[in-house]
Amino acid sequence: MNWDRLTTVEEMEAATNSLLENGKKVGADSWQQRVKNQTPHCGFGEAGTCCRICSMGPCRITPKSPRGICGCDVHGIVGRNFLRFVAGGAATHSDHGREIMHTLHQTKPDGSYQVKDPEKLLRIAKEWGVETEGKDIYDLAHEMAEIGLMEYGKPFGVQRFLQRAPEHTQKLWHEAGIEPRAIDREVATALHMTHMGNSSLPEALIRQSLRSGLSDGWGGSMMGTEFSDVMFGTPKPVDTTANIGVMEKDMVNIIVHGHDPSLSEMVVYYANDPEMIALAKSYGAKGINVAGVCCTANEVAMRHGIPMAGNFLSQENVVLTGACEAIVVDVQCIFPALGPLSKCFHTKFITTSPIARMPDSEFIQFSAESAGENAKAIVKMAVENFQNRNQDLVNIPNQVSKARVGYSVEAIVKVLDGVANTQVDELGTTKPLLECITSGVLRGAVAMVGCNNPKVRPDFAHIELMKKLLENDIILIVSGCSAQAAAKAGLMDPEVAKDYCGAGLKRVCELANIPPVLHMGSCVDISRMMILASQLSKDSGIPISQLPVVGCAPEWMSEKAVSIGNYVVATGIDTFLGVDPYSKGSDEVTALLQGEHGIKDWVEANYTVELDIEKLGDKMIERIEQKRAALGI
Amino acid sequence: MNWDRLTTVEEMEAATNSLLENGKKVGADSWQQRVKNQTPHCGFGEAGTCCRICSMGPCRITPKSPRGICGCDVHGIVGRNFLRFVAGGAATHSDHGREIMHTLHQTKPDGSYQVKDPEKLLRIAKEWGVETEGKDIYDLAHEMAEIGLMEYGKPFGVQRFLQRAPEHTQKLWHEAGIEPRAIDREVATALHMTHMGNSSLPEALIRQSLRSGLSDGWGGSMMGTEFSDVMFGTPKPVDTTANIGVMEKDMVNIIVHGHDPSLSEMVVYYANDPEMIALAKSYGAKGINVAGVCCTANEVAMRHGIPMAGNFLSQENVVLTGACEAIVVDVQCIFPALGPLSKCFHTKFITTSPIARMPDSEFIQFSAESAGENAKAIVKMAVENFQNRNQDLVNIPNQVSKARVGYSVEAIVKVLDGVANTQVDELGTTKPLLECITSGVLRGAVAMVGCNNPKVRPDFAHIELMKKLLENDIILIVSGCSAQAAAKAGLMDPEVAKDYCGAGLKRVCELANIPPVLHMGSCVDISRMMILASQLSKDSGIPISQLPVVGCAPEWMSEKAVSIGNYVVATGIDTFLGVDPYSKGSDEVTALLQGEHGIKDWVEANYTVELDIEKLGDKMIERIEQKRAALGI
Repeated sequence: MNWDRLTTVEEMEAATNSLLENGKKVGADSWQQRVKNQTPHCGFGEAGTCCRICSMGPCRITPKSPRGICGCDVHGIVGRNFLRFVAGGAATHSDHGREIMHTLHQTKPDGSYQVKDPEKLLRIAKEWGVETEGKDIYDLAHEMAEIGLMEYGKPFGVQRFLQRAPEHTQKLWHEAGIEPRAIDREVATALHMTHMGNSSLPEALIRQSLRSGLSDGWGGSMMGTEFSDVMFGTPKPVDTTANIGVMEKDMVNIIVHGHDPSLSEMVVYYANDPEMIALAKSYGAKGINVAGVCCTANEVAMRHGIPMAGNFLSQENVVLTGACEAIVVDVQCIFPALGPLSKCFHTKFITTSPIARMPDSEFIQFSAESAGENAKAIVKMAVENFQNRNQDLVNIPNQVSKARVGYSVEAIVKVLDGVANTQVDELGTTKPLLECITSGVLRGAVAMVGCNNPKVRPDFAHIELMKKLLENDIILIVSGCSAQAAAKAGLMDPEVAKDYCGAGLKRVCELANIPPVLHMGSCVDISRMMILASQLSKDSGIPISQLPVVGCAPEWMSEKAVSIGNYVVATGIDTFLGVDPYSKGSDEVTALLQGEHGIKDWVEANYTVELDIEKLGDKMIERIEQKRAALGI
Repeated sequence: MNWDRLTTVEEMEAATNSLLENGKKVGADSWQQRVKNQTPHCGFGEAGTCCRICSMGPCRITPKSPRGICGCDVHGIVGRNFLRFVAGGAATHSDHGREIMHTLHQTKPDGSYQVKDPEKLLRIAKEWGVETEGKDIYDLAHEMAEIGLMEYGKPFGVQRFLQRAPEHTQKLWHEAGIEPRAIDREVATALHMTHMGNSSLPEALIRQSLRSGLSDGWGGSMMGTEFSDVMFGTPKPVDTTANIGVMEKDMVNIIVHGHDPSLSEMVVYYANDPEMIALAKSYGAKGINVAGVCCTANEVAMRHGIPMAGNFLSQENVVLTGACEAIVVDVQCIFPALGPLSKCFHTKFITTSPIARMPDSEFIQFSAESAGENAKAIVKMAVENFQNRNQDLVNIPNQVSKARVGYSVEAIVKVLDGVANTQVDELGTTKPLLECITSGVLRGAVAMVGCNNPKVRPDFAHIELMKKLLENDIILIVSGCSAQAAAKAGLMDPEVAKDYCGAGLKRVCELANIPPVLHMGSCVDISRMMILASQLSKDSGIPISQLPVVGCAPEWMSEKAVSIGNYVVATGIDTFLGVDPYSKGSDEVTALLQGEHGIKDWVEANYTVELDIEKLGDKMIERIEQKRAALGI
């Protein structure tokens, strides 16, 4: 392995091509082929100008038919479609958080799930005004689970975590009327507003989009992150590896894929079970190798150093190696294609959640109550499947990068404490980072997140933008598939990545012993970034919107990503997208999202959509420099 | 007025044409014109085979591109679109119920909203296991409001009203895994399941469609109906009038339109305020006339005998008369077209709900807290607008029918008590109706509901089907726009309509002094029909699915209608649709919904989709006769 340089996108594409060749031998379909079949896309759908909300239609807006049958104009239709897109994402992300709360409700000292970070639980309990004195930690966990679950459905009041934001931000939310009430209610309100014969005023639709997004980022997702930490441990820096080469030729390979760590934590546990390892050996394997895809990978990489085999558009690749005994999935971003694809190989495609039922899969319903039993059955099924592997079809490209991951806010603050001057500095703050930014050693920070999308050359935008930003002394905090793109390339290897940084950033990385691209977790963990931004604002006294920090999702594809975009923007962070959110059909909606007097008037931030990745990078750097200039730094 | 015959659809169409001529004078657009512009519709959208759920697409299924980019096949795509359609409807309908519960929470002995049916409140409190003894009725109302609001968001358990269903039905729901949990949670679950990378198994998607529908019909809608009765009174038979001729040439005409009675109740109250009437007279009007459109009309017709000017596709007609001073809307089924249309006349288009914000309207935010003040301001605005009427544009077609409305379940039972033999019969049951059915005097009953849809000749399907069923001694219970079609035609006039009935039904109508088409309320009030069906089942000992009763929505158009369809079918009532629910693109989904071994295996009922209205009627009669034969009656 050549550990001293980045793996290029070209090299990754070559590896993918060799895997596609493998697939051809067994008649496998691929997303690359399906993209060809599905191109060109419907122009109405892409512009957001098609309405299927009632059965009088579908209606499509053209110059000759400027209104739908109900009389809705293009701005109403695009606005409604946008709000529904957000609602789909907010509901989905938040539901992940709900599952975590239900799991927390099942914690037991001797059960499958335990409280691994009691300090964090106590800290949140105090924030929520819950009495902790003399309370058994598990009783407290269950009480907190019930309170957290009520955040989804309480009839009165707004989200508890909003109070974590700087006062200035809270004031903006209040004045804009976008403080989210119960999480599920914001979803229902979004669907009601967009139902036939309700709202068609773009401003109202976009306001609810922000509110629904906030219910995710400062509600469901934030609970998902925080209470995952309580149960599974708050991430700390840990070294791991990434890219398709993490799959092991001589071992049973179990791929965990999806988002909710409740399942993957248990799979990891049972893959280390001596009984299972012995079983694997009895079938001729050297052991059991668990690797991850998508955000489930991020979760177990951050907490256990489990290697990351790939991100969203690599999910077929793991099966195409011919060496995947089982791909075990929970929820979200799972290709239905894995069903027929797994049938071309010996791979078991194991679905586990009632939320994600797919044809051509083996369904082993996973629940917090029977988690151990379910996970053991899954690991056993994978191990027993090793004997069915066709060695002639095994092709594991030799691509692996080292990666240091695990940068929760707590971990970042601890890193910063390490470089603070303990004689004069207050510990436990973000001030050392602020000093680097103020002094100009770092120019700013970019939160790079989101998926892959075949509309953008996969991983290329993530990696090239990161390289550009690093060169310009801009530090990166990343999550989700963006994080995995970085890891695959080698940008999370402190030894390698520092050489791609400007002098200031390189110095900071060396001093703090960190990679310049900090892996903050999965896509629900973008809530960590909100907390970090809030902390920076509180520690500096500067509103979030004035900090030289922007967000970017260059290859996003899912509804969740737009929900995220909305809470990031609503938190005051300008957000840059490399794919249009089906909204270009309305200049009014576009002006609200991207103009100087739309959402920017409400939350002091807005969107930039730029399909040219080079320009997208330039615009981010320009925005950061504008913010610096405005601050006089 | 010729009161002795039905108004035909041809006559109604002629009246509409004369109104459209009126519109032409002022450059008004119309749905008739927009339908022309929007036809033909997109075939992918109509078949449900287009997916816009993530931004990799849109993807469209064809023989050459049988899977979307993620690998989802046509069955997954159609199933997801269907579930999302249902979720949109369930969220919307249920949110109406939530607003009612919030209004109940604001009731005060001397406030805008009071408890008008304390007996009903006490009855429901007992059902819910709430202590009533010695409790102030308003304290109880507020307690019940909070409990009801928790039905939207409670973290554990299923809907309270499910226990109203026959035990057999409850057992089916339990076994099928479709007992709805918190209402909003079912909406969030539906969106999560259909988010990119989750469920693509049609069976799972359709199961959740039923569950989401049930959360509406046996949850949100049922609460909406029951607590509207508590606050505004349980409907009793009352005589009113219907059709466009209810508008008054010499009076201030205020049209209430939408669904939530909280607003319209207050408008009706202030339209009777001597101060407002005096004001109207000072402007030269003879008084103030309130009439309704859509379900708001049904609500105030059922409780106050307010005339019904029209149904869904008549909403533009009221403005086109040139005699509409204000069209005041709350939520749902409101054409955005009313904005520009009202600008062609002097009409004030007044929106009142944050849920339904529209361009070109005057927004007076209505809330339970300030209801009186808001309603008075609205009535005043309408009155003051009388002076702006252009008399040259006034054209009120002389079409009015008499209608007897107000058949809540309580009212129907009371009617039946009136024909029972008090010597031998138990009172307060549906047994007299069952006896009529068993003896064959009546062959059965059809619940006819739903909207208008330009895909079906408006009102024609409702009216022609009703006539056909009446001839065949099948009694009709109706709601929503179907009810208004019947009322406009004259089928709710007991004197006229009986002559269109078979001999058995005619005799029943005369004996009970009822029209053969019983107006049970607005679209949320289809929950009343579920209670009636349950009562028939309990009183007879026959499962609902075996009763000679079917449901029909021949001209439906909204997502709500499909949510309704799902809970009606899930309750065991075969349901007949005249418009396809965007599902024909998948034979698997179609088989699940319409076949012998899909949902029918779970809930003992299924859908029939038949676009030929004549055949639709034949099929319903055939199904009713099959059920009779199976019962040996």
